[in-house]
Amino acid sequence: MAGNSFGQLFKLTTFGESHGKALGGIIDGCPSGITLDLDKVQEELNRRKPGQSAIVTQRKEPDTVEIYSGVFEGKTTGTPIGFAIHNTNQKSKDYSHIKDSYRPSHADYVYDKKYGFRDYRGGGRSSARETASRVVAGAIAKQFLSEIQINAFVSQVGEMKLDKPYQELDFSLIESNAVRCPDTEMAQKMEDYIKSIKKEGDTIGGVITCVIQNVPIGLGEPVFDKLHAKLGEAMLSINAVKGFEYGSGFAGVAMKGSQHNDAFNTDGTTKTNRSGGVQGGISNGMDIYFSVAFKPVATVLQSYDTINKEGEKVTAQGKGRHDPCVVPRAVPIVEAMAALVLADYSLLARANKI
Amino acid sequence: MAGNSFGQLFKLTTFGESHGKALGGIIDGCPSGITLDLDKVQEELNRRKPGQSAIVTQRKEPDTVEIYSGVFEGKTTGTPIGFAIHNTNQKSKDYSHIKDSYRPSHADYVYDKKYGFRDYRGGGRSSARETASRVVAGAIAKQFLSEIQINAFVSQVGEMKLDKPYQELDFSLIESNAVRCPDTEMAQKMEDYIKSIKKEGDTIGGVITCVIQNVPIGLGEPVFDKLHAKLGEAMLSINAVKGFEYGSGFAGVAMKGSQHNDAFNTDGTTKTNRSGGVQGGISNGMDIYFSVAFKPVATVLQSYDTINKEGEKVTAQGKGRHDPCVVPRAVPIVEAMAALVLADYSLLARANKI
Amino acid sequence: MAGNSFGQLFKLTTFGESHGKALGGIIDGCPSGITLDLDKVQEELNRRKPGQSAIVTQRKEPDTVEIYSGVFEGKTTGTPIGFAIHNTNQKSKDYSHIKDSYRPSHADYVYDKKYGFRDYRGGGRSSARETASRVVAGAIAKQFLSEIQINAFVSQVGEMKLDKPYQELDFSLIESNAVRCPDTEMAQKMEDYIKSIKKEGDTIGGVITCVIQNVPIGLGEPVFDKLHAKLGEAMLSINAVKGFEYGSGFAGVAMKGSQHNDAFNTDGTTKTNRSGGVQGGISNGMDIYFSVAFKPVATVLQSYDTINKEGEKVTAQGKGRHDPCVVPRAVPIVEAMAALVLADYSLLARANKI
Amino acid sequence: MAGNSFGQLFKLTTFGESHGKALGGIIDGCPSGITLDLDKVQEELNRRKPGQSAIVTQRKEPDTVEIYSGVFEGKTTGTPIGFAIHNTNQKSKDYSHIKDSYRPSHADYVYDKKYGFRDYRGGGRSSARETASRVVAGAIAKQFLSEIQINAFVSQVGEMKLDKPYQELDFSLIESNAVRCPDTEMAQKMEDYIKSIKKEGDTIGGVITCVIQNVPIGLGEPVFDKLHAKLGEAMLSINAVKGFEYGSGFAGVAMKGSQHNDAFNTDGTTKTNRSGGVQGGISNGMDIYFSVAFKPVATVLQSYDTINKEGEKVTAQGKGRHDPCVVPRAVPIVEAMAALVLADYSLLARANKI
Repeated sequence: MAGNSFGQLFKLTTFGESHGKALGGIIDGCPSGITLDLDKVQEELNRRKPGQSAIVTQRKEPDTVEIYSGVFEGKTTGTPIGFAIHNTNQKSKDYSHIKDSYRPSHADYVYDKKYGFRDYRGGGRSSARETASRVVAGAIAKQFLSEIQINAFVSQVGEMKLDKPYQELDFSLIESNAVRCPDTEMAQKMEDYIKSIKKEGDTIGGVITCVIQNVPIGLGEPVFDKLHAKLGEAMLSINAVKGFEYGSGFAGVAMKGSQHNDAFNTDGTTKTNRSGGVQGGISNGMDIYFSVAFKPVATVLQSYDTINKEGEKVTAQGKGRHDPCVVPRAVPIVEAMAALVLADYSLLARANKI
Repeated sequence: MAGNSFGQLFKLTTFGESHGKALGGIIDGCPSGITLDLDKVQEELNRRKPGQSAIVTQRKEPDTVEIYSGVFEGKTTGTPIGFAIHNTNQKSKDYSHIKDSYRPSHADYVYDKKYGFRDYRGGGRSSARETASRVVAGAIAKQFLSEIQINAFVSQVGEMKLDKPYQELDFSLIESNAVRCPDTEMAQKMEDYIKSIKKEGDTIGGVITCVIQNVPIGLGEPVFDKLHAKLGEAMLSINAVKGFEYGSGFAGVAMKGSQHNDAFNTDGTTKTNRSGGVQGGISNGMDIYFSVAFKPVATVLQSYDTINKEGEKVTAQGKGRHDPCVVPRAVPIVEAMAALVLADYSLLARANKI
Repeated sequence: MAGNSFGQLFKLTTFGESHGKALGGIIDGCPSGITLDLDKVQEELNRRKPGQSAIVTQRKEPDTVEIYSGVFEGKTTGTPIGFAIHNTNQKSKDYSHIKDSYRPSHADYVYDKKYGFRDYRGGGRSSARETASRVVAGAIAKQFLSEIQINAFVSQVGEMKLDKPYQELDFSLIESNAVRCPDTEMAQKMEDYIKSIKKEGDTIGGVITCVIQNVPIGLGEPVFDKLHAKLGEAMLSINAVKGFEYGSGFAGVAMKGSQHNDAFNTDGTTKTNRSGGVQGGISNGMDIYFSVAFKPVATVLQSYDTINKEGEKVTAQGKGRHDPCVVPRAVPIVEAMAALVLADYSLLARANKI
Repeated sequence: MAGNSFGQLFKLTTFGESHGKALGGIIDGCPSGITLDLDKVQEELNRRKPGQSAIVTQRKEPDTVEIYSGVFEGKTTGTPIGFAIHNTNQKSKDYSHIKDSYRPSHADYVYDKKYGFRDYRGGGRSSARETASRVVAGAIAKQFLSEIQINAFVSQVGEMKLDKPYQELDFSLIESNAVRCPDTEMAQKMEDYIKSIKKEGDTIGGVITCVIQNVPIGLGEPVFDKLHAKLGEAMLSINAVKGFEYGSGFAGVAMKGSQHNDAFNTDGTTKTNRSGGVQGGISNGMDIYFSVAFKPVATVLQSYDTINKEGEKVTAQGKGRHDPCVVPRAVPIVEAMAALVLADYSLLARANKI
């Protein structure tokens, strides 16, 4: 497996480089008979789109998805859904300056070593542009999972951290600001901070928290394919992600078992939810919540020292239109990957149903 | 995929419940001609074994592995390696008290809901006893990966945190103490703390850090099967794990790109290694390092309120011989899963070689 | 994928060589709550066992299966079913004469080339002994598929061909004779013929026909995983198989479309069934029937010319206790593989259900 | 697995219906650095194209393939190759007459039952039009396998059978006639016969034989993924295929082992090749050859009785532009599937190399 597929029964395979003709994918395994709202798919793609606000890259890409198959008279047919997003604005000249040198903390160097050469027009396959295909598939998965709510939001930018428990947040505010933070005040601070970082030609990291509600009991396949393990893999496969935690996460290690355990209510729900909605790799019906850490974008609009293909020192200058902070645009990607995991496990649960 | 297999080309499938006749597995895809030291395999298993020190469960299990196939005249044949570990000391009576009630933060409840009934003799398939099979397979993978060094150690117990960078640690000290912490002084503190926790009949969480050295450049398959994504999945599939981070991890989000980027040396190595040895999902030849968060063991030897199958409140008493802190015994498991991931990607790299 | 697994959701992985300690496997994905009659599993294994009649190998192997996991209180738990069959009578000395030479039309030569060396005690992994594990798994699959009837029988030995359509046969007679042919008269002729072949120290090929009845409509996943394509792969994976045809098969090519098409009855059944119960890769509810061609066993008890590892001409003498004709013992293997395919597609059909 | 992917390491996933916007696919796992001649890819597609001669369907489809990714400056990059073939001439009105009735021996009925409804514009996903994507992928696989020669040809139409051993045939004549039979005289007879069948508005079946030469020793993964088992699955997944045999095939069953065995030459080649180039599931370096049986096309241009969705008897009239015999156009499809199997096993062999 060269690694461009995700999922077992609800399976996405993607193709495309940042500067190729088109990118897209195939969703194989989407059940038949699902009424598909293609405008909603495009809306999700628009949430990821460049140029949508002052704090994201100003690159111009319409990112219009074209569905080639698998949908007939507004419903899925059970056959594979093929789709493409054509690259209309490739601007490869923007990248000519990096043709022969390796950008620090980018994949240029390892791609060159692994594949013998690279698409020097930019990130090529390693570019986060690939995630557009994931958003399309995730948007379709969301419509299949109509009863499950998936809400991701920015919970940290640099050292600015949203400390409220998610239960106190109003998810309807997520889309009300450019940062996609459901706390208006904090959102404003984050936005101002990102703007100041951008002025410096620098970048900053952040954290996205995702909450999944109304999940049926029983999703997840022990032992290797635990639900949270696959969610972790899904999130770690997103560009720039450095960490994943769910439920009590890293903070949980400092607790005693007597404090950490989630006591049962008589209906099988639990009084607390440090488990994060997953027990032994299987959903227990409580909210699933997790956090995803994103490193600062590697492309800084400053001059930097690096090496060229010959291993000689060179000085380069960061150019182009890049995101000063990736998390605002990564929110729909996190939701998409969560939707793909849940869609896949929903089908697996059907297969293994009693 | 009922989820009991891990890996694509170097593939482990495991079977067995905590109180069944035996557990074991099949390694499919191990190349032929590898000289296999079976004593080393047993040694790894002994590192995980109960009863090895005062701070782990005192359960008696010899955990002797029997190899059934795939090895001939001391070498692997390229055919599947089947193995079993027979359960000699099942003590199912120890568990009779939990037959009809659900232990908080255990998988009892979700297994019952998902599978219609459960093996009430204990954790059954959800027990960490399953990881013994992983250690066997990992020990074989390590021998295949003879040039790569994998060292895991305990870096945190409760709030006691080992703050030294791993470069300052002497890995030869890991096995010198019961905690498996390479800092003798900190190890003593952790051990004393775990003993006090045990006296209370309580449990505590911890963190294991793993360092992988001498990794060739080019392991990892973008885009979904990034090397660190698979490492994360592997670690999150271990019982009680709540989080995973690699390289700069969660701390990296507070950094600026200009600080975070790893500048190149002329030989392609980097001056810093915030990337954690993986760039764009592909190993770059630098050390791979990551941390894994373990929650406190759910079984506390105290009385607790819970519910029974009928959804009635009941009071139960934690019994049996359990680990007060799981991390000392989890060190070989983390190493085993890391070895399985690397073995698999080594074979994939061969297939995709230029 | 070293190729020792079969199936996607109802997945069998096998291990073991003809002269190793044990062979066995793991069934992953068998749903929970199925009442399992282990005696029936052993009975299926006995149908494949050596020494059961005068026309099969007289090797002594009890072939007793031991179930290690996945079954509790007589029911499947939904966890992997691990099992082993211990080799009690390895007689490796019987094979010393072939240690250094390659038997014609055996896998000795290619195993040596592919794996660098081979288990010279006999067929090793390439021995049909591996199919014992398939029979165990198939017997469990049959119990999961309780409503579907699978009947295989010998329809040809050498040039002796049973020309009656299967509808005229009484399947209850299959086990009434050593050949496993439901036509008593033809069975006697075949048996006499196999005995005469055996006297010559020679072997002969044969054909097994399999009929699957009471199959639900909708099993099969277009386009690559058509039901008959997977049945064909399953049969071709059995040792000594050279061909597979279903429905009208090779004879169908000489027909015109107007003759070959199966006209519908008003209930959706068809008046004829040249399609063999599968249309476009999906079961249509009619009987599925197919034929499998087996070559003559390669081990003849005569002297033959061959080469040794050094590529020198040598003369060798066929020894040991081998089957003069493989089809009588292969009948339960064909049924087992058919059951595994149907069990897998039954689970897939659940996943993709409307 | 909804079944639209083929291969493990060299993996093709296809999408598209006969009357959708486009069909195409993604090749994942093609190694990097392969110089790709896209004209040759189009040439292969043209061999399958409708309207190429008087004995195939006169449908007008340019079948022009567009490559979206995975190729840069004329070479493969190691990233997925996405491609599409746009449907320019859908003529869905041609199919309005079958909207409510089921065509005998077509997939209409089972698709309706399995998916709840169907794309009534024609075969939809079950149409052989899907194989165009396979031909594209196979043409790329052929360029990766530059040293292996794959030649398929028509060896039987109706009862007209080419009885010469393939060694006596001149493969350069295959493309010299419309039937794709390398015996000019027989080709003419077959062509005349197909024309007469066409006049009747009827159809006829046929057989394609495929010969693969210069295959390295060691391709194939026992035990389930035997090389010939995967070849069989690949061929049986092609529309209208009813049977597969390799080497001595069904004729081999009538032989004695002493006659059937292939004696070795001192260089490891064999004097005869009844094994068909595969021993124990692994290529032995001899020619691989196999035959594939195709049923007569189900669409006859005559009036026929059938049923509608309500299960009522109706009389329908076969219309449209269909092939009277599918084998001439199926030759490149057989070659493509063979190439995909060999490409996949070539990568697997690298992974498992000693």
